[in-house]
Amino acid sequence: MIAHLIEQIQKKQAPIVVGLDPMWEFVPEPIRQAALEAHGESLEAAGAALWEYNRGLIDALWELAPAVKPQIAMYEQFGLPGLEAYVKTIAYAREKGMVIIGDIKRGDIGSTSAAYAKGHLGRVRIGRSLYRPFPADFVTLNPYMGDDAIRPFLEECQAEDKGVFILCKTSNPSSGDFQDQLVEGQPLYDRVADKIRAWGEECMDGEYSNVGAVVGATYPQMAEELRRRMPRTYILVPGYGAQGASGKDLRAFFNSDGLGAIVNSSRGIIAAYQQKAYAGMDYQEAARAAFLAMREDINSHIRA
Amino acid sequence: MIAHLIEQIQKKQAPIVVGLDPMWEFVPEPIRQAALEAHGESLEAAGAALWEYNRGLIDALWELAPAVKPQIAMYEQFGLPGLEAYVKTIAYAREKGMVIIGDIKRGDIGSTSAAYAKGHLGRVRIGRSLYRPFPADFVTLNPYMGDDAIRPFLEECQAEDKGVFILCKTSNPSSGDFQDQLVEGQPLYDRVADKIRAWGEECMDGEYSNVGAVVGATYPQMAEELRRRMPRTYILVPGYGAQGASGKDLRAFFNSDGLGAIVNSSRGIIAAYQQKAYAGMDYQEAARAAFLAMREDINSHIRA
Repeated sequence: MIAHLIEQIQKKQAPIVVGLDPMWEFVPEPIRQAALEAHGESLEAAGAALWEYNRGLIDALWELAPAVKPQIAMYEQFGLPGLEAYVKTIAYAREKGMVIIGDIKRGDIGSTSAAYAKGHLGRVRIGRSLYRPFPADFVTLNPYMGDDAIRPFLEECQAEDKGVFILCKTSNPSSGDFQDQLVEGQPLYDRVADKIRAWGEECMDGEYSNVGAVVGATYPQMAEELRRRMPRTYILVPGYGAQGASGKDLRAFFNSDGLGAIVNSSRGIIAAYQQKAYAGMDYQEAARAAFLAMREDINSHIRA
Repeated sequence: MIAHLIEQIQKKQAPIVVGLDPMWEFVPEPIRQAALEAHGESLEAAGAALWEYNRGLIDALWELAPAVKPQIAMYEQFGLPGLEAYVKTIAYAREKGMVIIGDIKRGDIGSTSAAYAKGHLGRVRIGRSLYRPFPADFVTLNPYMGDDAIRPFLEECQAEDKGVFILCKTSNPSSGDFQDQLVEGQPLYDRVADKIRAWGEECMDGEYSNVGAVVGATYPQMAEELRRRMPRTYILVPGYGAQGASGKDLRAFFNSDGLGAIVNSSRGIIAAYQQKAYAGMDYQEAARAAFLAMREDINSHIRA
């Protein structure tokens, strides 16, 4: 699956994934109003508004963006109708040829981890029938519980040609609370990186592995070392834009082949219409313009 | 909320939570058959079977058990119909007066963490209306991302009188991959424990805190030290029974007041009917008998 993602990145000349994190206040007012009129003040209204908004975003972006990353929390908070919007969004993005990274950050053990792996990457069996309830191409995972938590996902990666991105050094201010603690003189995230590389060696797909890592753009000084430790690992980079990082911070995340990283932007693209810079545009035009500006910013730095 | 849980534990003389982790192969054959006949080989059939099984378990156990812990992965793997069974199970357990620990192990940052916190412990707002999509009393959390990941849940704990159990030292064989790494001579899980205690001090509810910890029964040698580091923290203890621990391993998890821990059993209770020891009983009778045996085993050790 990483080979397919790379192909799409190269075709679209954009190492970018659009974060579909539709906070209620990002949803354009006319979409919210229409949903509330149709469904009253209900979870169904929220689900309908999220789906309508996402459909418009995918329509605006599918020719430009290789991938989308829906953050499942933004859907899950609205219960079953919210998760129905998540399922519809995945299906529509797939129809448009986009790669889907389900940002689920799950992590559990044994049979529990296997249940998540089947539900989000693989297939569940009921009698003789098989279903894909939340069919992503990649999912994000939390490594705190160790190998047991990850292995069932590796099995799905191999059986189904899917991929994962495992949290390594996250973009948030307090990511250092545990991730930066020194173990024999080296930060814990280095240990995690070594493990990600080892897991990745079991799941190669061309030059890169189906097992990727999450490393925040907000910590570029750490990216160089992590890039070195995980040379064949794709890095999913959150933190661009709203969280403060810009193109120049990203160079260290990429290999000399111009590959090796995919940068996420959520609010900066999907809610661009709320920024002064895009005043007068509708949310779809603004999303396209913001995507193109980001592509220019990133490509000018990684290709320099 | 921890004060309420303690009250229920004392009333029922059982520091036990029943893990409602309904793997498909645990569901009694007649329930599976009825669901498949009614819904065909569909996700709806799986959801219907899980709900019917859980309803029977709650009917059998509500007078004995203070709490249930549904593992959301077992429902999520069956998509929206599976999660509908999760919602119904929570509602029914609440109706029967049981405390609900949603085993979700979520962990993310900022607005994302807030979305999970509102969806599982608090309320989401749509217009002027408020909803509780997945209304648990406690949820389990993953600490890898640090303070940012936990804080939105602490806010819900305070605003809504709810609680959390944060992963500290988990019960699985590979929990040591990262949790046992030595930071300045002490394992990482000690660092996590110190943080759990500090978070807990912000959320006291009587003698104990609404911020609890998860420490596996399979590591009793670590329990003593962790008990000492987190004296007012309730410990949720997985790993009893199927994972190998028994009553004598549990003493160190409890304080001298006989409180401080609640032990989970899932398969050992809900699928007891599949064990030789309970041959001839139906799944409800077997669950009650297994619960009573576990209560006897634990109480004989912590009260000795």
